[in-house]
Amino acid sequence: MNQHALPRAAGPTAKFRPPAIHQVRVGGFFGPRVDTVAAVTAHTLLDRCIEAGMLDQIDPDRPNPGLRIPFQSGNATVSTQMFWDSDFGKSIETAAYALFRKPDPALEARVDEVIDAYARLQGEDGYLNSWYQRIQPGKRWTNLRDCHELYDAGHLIEGAVAYYHATGKRKLMDIMAAYVDHIAARFGDGDEKRPGYCGHPEIELALVKLGRATGEQRFLDLARYFVDERGRSPHYYDEEARERGADPQDYHFKAYDYMQAHEPVREQDRVVGHAVRAAYLYSGMADVSTEFGDETLKPALEALWAHLTEKNLYVTGGFGPSAHNEGLTFDYDLPNETAYAETCAAVALVFWANRMLGLGPDRKYADAMERALYNGALVGLSLDGTRFFYDNPLESRGEHHRWTWHRCPCCPPNIARLVASVGTYMYGEAEDALAVHLYCEGEAELNVAGMKVRVTQATDYPADGKVALTLDPAESAHFTLHLRVPEWAGTLAATLNGEPLDAPSLTRNGYLAIERRWEPGDKVTLDFEMPVLRLRADPRIGANQGRVALQRGPLVYCLEETDNGAALNSLLLAPGSAFRCEAVAELGGAAALVTEGRRETAASGALYSAAEPEREDATIRAVPYYAWDNRANGEMLVWIREEASR
Amino acid sequence: MNQHALPRAAGPTAKFRPPAIHQVRVGGFFGPRVDTVAAVTAHTLLDRCIEAGMLDQIDPDRPNPGLRIPFQSGNATVSTQMFWDSDFGKSIETAAYALFRKPDPALEARVDEVIDAYARLQGEDGYLNSWYQRIQPGKRWTNLRDCHELYDAGHLIEGAVAYYHATGKRKLMDIMAAYVDHIAARFGDGDEKRPGYCGHPEIELALVKLGRATGEQRFLDLARYFVDERGRSPHYYDEEARERGADPQDYHFKAYDYMQAHEPVREQDRVVGHAVRAAYLYSGMADVSTEFGDETLKPALEALWAHLTEKNLYVTGGFGPSAHNEGLTFDYDLPNETAYAETCAAVALVFWANRMLGLGPDRKYADAMERALYNGALVGLSLDGTRFFYDNPLESRGEHHRWTWHRCPCCPPNIARLVASVGTYMYGEAEDALAVHLYCEGEAELNVAGMKVRVTQATDYPADGKVALTLDPAESAHFTLHLRVPEWAGTLAATLNGEPLDAPSLTRNGYLAIERRWEPGDKVTLDFEMPVLRLRADPRIGANQGRVALQRGPLVYCLEETDNGAALNSLLLAPGSAFRCEAVAELGGAAALVTEGRRETAASGALYSAAEPEREDATIRAVPYYAWDNRANGEMLVWIREEASR
Repeated sequence: MNQHALPRAAGPTAKFRPPAIHQVRVGGFFGPRVDTVAAVTAHTLLDRCIEAGMLDQIDPDRPNPGLRIPFQSGNATVSTQMFWDSDFGKSIETAAYALFRKPDPALEARVDEVIDAYARLQGEDGYLNSWYQRIQPGKRWTNLRDCHELYDAGHLIEGAVAYYHATGKRKLMDIMAAYVDHIAARFGDGDEKRPGYCGHPEIELALVKLGRATGEQRFLDLARYFVDERGRSPHYYDEEARERGADPQDYHFKAYDYMQAHEPVREQDRVVGHAVRAAYLYSGMADVSTEFGDETLKPALEALWAHLTEKNLYVTGGFGPSAHNEGLTFDYDLPNETAYAETCAAVALVFWANRMLGLGPDRKYADAMERALYNGALVGLSLDGTRFFYDNPLESRGEHHRWTWHRCPCCPPNIARLVASVGTYMYGEAEDALAVHLYCEGEAELNVAGMKVRVTQATDYPADGKVALTLDPAESAHFTLHLRVPEWAGTLAATLNGEPLDAPSLTRNGYLAIERRWEPGDKVTLDFEMPVLRLRADPRIGANQGRVALQRGPLVYCLEETDNGAALNSLLLAPGSAFRCEAVAELGGAAALVTEGRRETAASGALYSAAEPEREDATIRAVPYYAWDNRANGEMLVWIREEASR
Repeated sequence: MNQHALPRAAGPTAKFRPPAIHQVRVGGFFGPRVDTVAAVTAHTLLDRCIEAGMLDQIDPDRPNPGLRIPFQSGNATVSTQMFWDSDFGKSIETAAYALFRKPDPALEARVDEVIDAYARLQGEDGYLNSWYQRIQPGKRWTNLRDCHELYDAGHLIEGAVAYYHATGKRKLMDIMAAYVDHIAARFGDGDEKRPGYCGHPEIELALVKLGRATGEQRFLDLARYFVDERGRSPHYYDEEARERGADPQDYHFKAYDYMQAHEPVREQDRVVGHAVRAAYLYSGMADVSTEFGDETLKPALEALWAHLTEKNLYVTGGFGPSAHNEGLTFDYDLPNETAYAETCAAVALVFWANRMLGLGPDRKYADAMERALYNGALVGLSLDGTRFFYDNPLESRGEHHRWTWHRCPCCPPNIARLVASVGTYMYGEAEDALAVHLYCEGEAELNVAGMKVRVTQATDYPADGKVALTLDPAESAHFTLHLRVPEWAGTLAATLNGEPLDAPSLTRNGYLAIERRWEPGDKVTLDFEMPVLRLRADPRIGANQGRVALQRGPLVYCLEETDNGAALNSLLLAPGSAFRCEAVAELGGAAALVTEGRRETAASGALYSAAEPEREDATIRAVPYYAWDNRANGEMLVWIREEASR
């Protein structure tokens, strides 16, 4: 595979940016998952997109498939078919990362076929959207609020950039650059242009990727425009509705907070509306803040972050409890059995947290990124890489299982592209500093202090908390190495070339910061104590009181019926009981947590009875949440009852 | 008020039938509730029916209002306007009972106006349905499955019978008798007739009422026909769909278990589908069993009863957890916060339980009747008689409040007619026996052993468990008096004319059975111990483990935020703590249960933390569930956490 050295976009160089996909090779915990996506899921996604009819829609040489998926209710003309370009975009992106992992000429040929179809579809004016070119011709740019037109472009841009990195082939990136120029000619400041932006944020962060990949400032400028214009008055969606003869009030979701367009972004301080839209927008805001050194976005980003993580985040890193709006409701509304917590939302939180780290190492962002990655996101993909969760309850009565596909198939390629590119989330590069945000066996070639530095991690993480890092700068170099100290860690023993480090005095924002002249072969060891935590929820989350969630390292655990029998709410953890780790072969060797507790049984056969339940000793076995529903079907429970200590 | 002595329909006379409305005068607990319905709710219902446009729809002399409420989704033509006749039927029934309670010429005149409109609407052939006569002419009898045509007739029949009892005016009853003759000419056995029955059961029980009121066997026969034909193959709804050019498979609810027409009724042993339809059907089945002495229906009725009460009933007497089908899902699926538990379903369970008592006194039916009446049904009506619950969660985060009206306004007149006629549920009359199913201050004039017997109850029930009954037969008479011993009662002390009774030896099916020659002035006293019960749920109802529901006498209790502060799940009952009763003036003097427990507060400000919560002493105050949401808005909780006893 080629190793492009791409120009960097303008902007302050002290900010941290993620490495490109080719810079990191992942082994350890994530290695087999990446391999599975490369070998299985990347093909599966293309198979299912094509089976669904997507290639028929985009290829102008094929018969027009027409409307295959019924319009959704509400007065707006909406069908999941209008997102099909985005599904291809994310599938191309996944395939691109897969090609980094393992050359696969057949996969590359399949992607090239799709790209060729897009090339034939693209209008002479640069316009490219299969829904509006083939299913609803004549309607383009009439409904940015509902119809995902710029969102589709965003995902194709992300796919194009990844495919360019993976193969050196510019065809799709050139197609998308021409389309972006068409978009930029229509939307922006100036009398000739309209002040529009997408109802589903996505293109903002995609344009930053395109700007970084091409070094073209105009793509970053358009990203900033879309961020800045959002929510301003007079409201674009009102005007747009009137122009197409609709009443702006006659809107299914009633208010523009559904897509975070209810007020200008710098005035926003509460995470509202559709969860994925929210985190995509905030990702774009953070990117723009990083690239333009725009400090005015920071107060909003920090307020939004606090509102999400202090009042609205599931312990799994999922968010957005309601199926109704696929998003937020009210503070502390975090029901378990009905949790929507869309896989895409946890994936998007990884994106957002990673971009908040662009503003500098800060454990609170990396901890949340890790929580969402290992739990609420990773659960979206079966261990064999073929099936997908869309919504992610924290308790199931036994009826919740992964889908082979979904009529709104946004989640499958989203979790697949995240897993396949997970190495890029592990590090941050700045001019004079490197950051290690996540620990995982593997190696990376990073850029700092004007040279390349090879960073090797030897670790069984997250099976245990021992990490040995070896740094090999091309030659001796002065820079700061930031090493995250997770909040879940107990004591930390750290050494530099065998000498103990005084971790507390070196810790800034939850990262060990080691500033020195680094020599090839320098070695840092970290040994994080990894206790089994019994997390308790704020009492305002009503359903979890008297219960604990088990967490060890980054992994949140759950009970499954296949290990514990039915009626999981009959089980009681004993206060302070010891846990032992037992590898589960069927779950790829993941560690189960096993402890001795009790099981309640009804003293009476009645549905309700004043008799106290009987209790007997019971062994309780928890498995990582990401791994559930990979064995026999049955109940699942994250928040486990605990007998109160007196 | 007149006191009709109506002829009895054919059938075995050993069965127990409820007294007519005029036979019972209710005081005590229910007296003020009946007064409020008579003075306020009866008028409110007519006001709101007329405001909604219902009189415009039924009165042929008014401009046709057309379709005011949008069609619901799905391929069937459905609007809540097609139920409007039923809303009038139940409102007329409520008004009739109100007129028994208190003469009200203005109310009577309003009802007469509605009846006059129906008289003008009725076709020359007897047909009467405002939807099909005015909104969808030409479509009558084309869709019994979805369109509630016979259901509407049923509720108008019930209203007509009640109004006849109340006022002696036969006009509406004659209208409905003519309509029933039209129906009987179309549906039934024979080459000229169709084997149809209603998608929403109701007319079956109404026809039994009409048969009992008129003494006409043909109405009972039609009830039996509808019960017997239901669910038979070839399936009427399949044939009907094909006749109107529709695909029988193209049905919103997929399968006929939604309306309990998936198999013949005698083969049914699981409560399935729409909850109200289910209980209305089973009520009709029980009535038919009673009236025809049909023992073949009993096994199905008993199996259905067991399935409901042993696996699918909320502790409040509500059932049907799901909003999707307004009904049943799977066994032990009894979530609290999302409980649908429609008011109408609890009302319908009162109907069904009452009719099961037609087969003889049995505490299990009367206990469930009482549970549903005092809790899941009564909660549907605000204390001031003006607002209504449709769905009835057992936990609320503070957003659940009674409606002024509902676009599907089935519940308001349903709970109103039940409250206004509650006296008829208290007793059962048989040829040689009387049964007292419910205790309440008041008096009744009952028929037994060929004479009238005045029964007077002096009691503060349910404030306490002491009941003094005085029997005044017109002359000395031999019969058995059955007195219910509720399952919730502790010890029972009973006397007859001052002499202790050996209650255990006299108890059959949970009723004290006293067979003797009764003399005027005979007095029985009962003193039920009424402890505060801490009910525990079967472990298969996951959400309730580690929690208890408080019940004292027939009343299930709940916590409200206005008494206990926010975050009700922070409160912990202490095992075995004592309760004291405190009257709450704002709740009509209802008794609160007060005890000392503890409140947890988070030890950390974080959303999730490994720190154990802190606990402080706290007074916990519970109020009857029926009375919640009558004061300040806020949270509510039925299943309360309890510290485990060791």
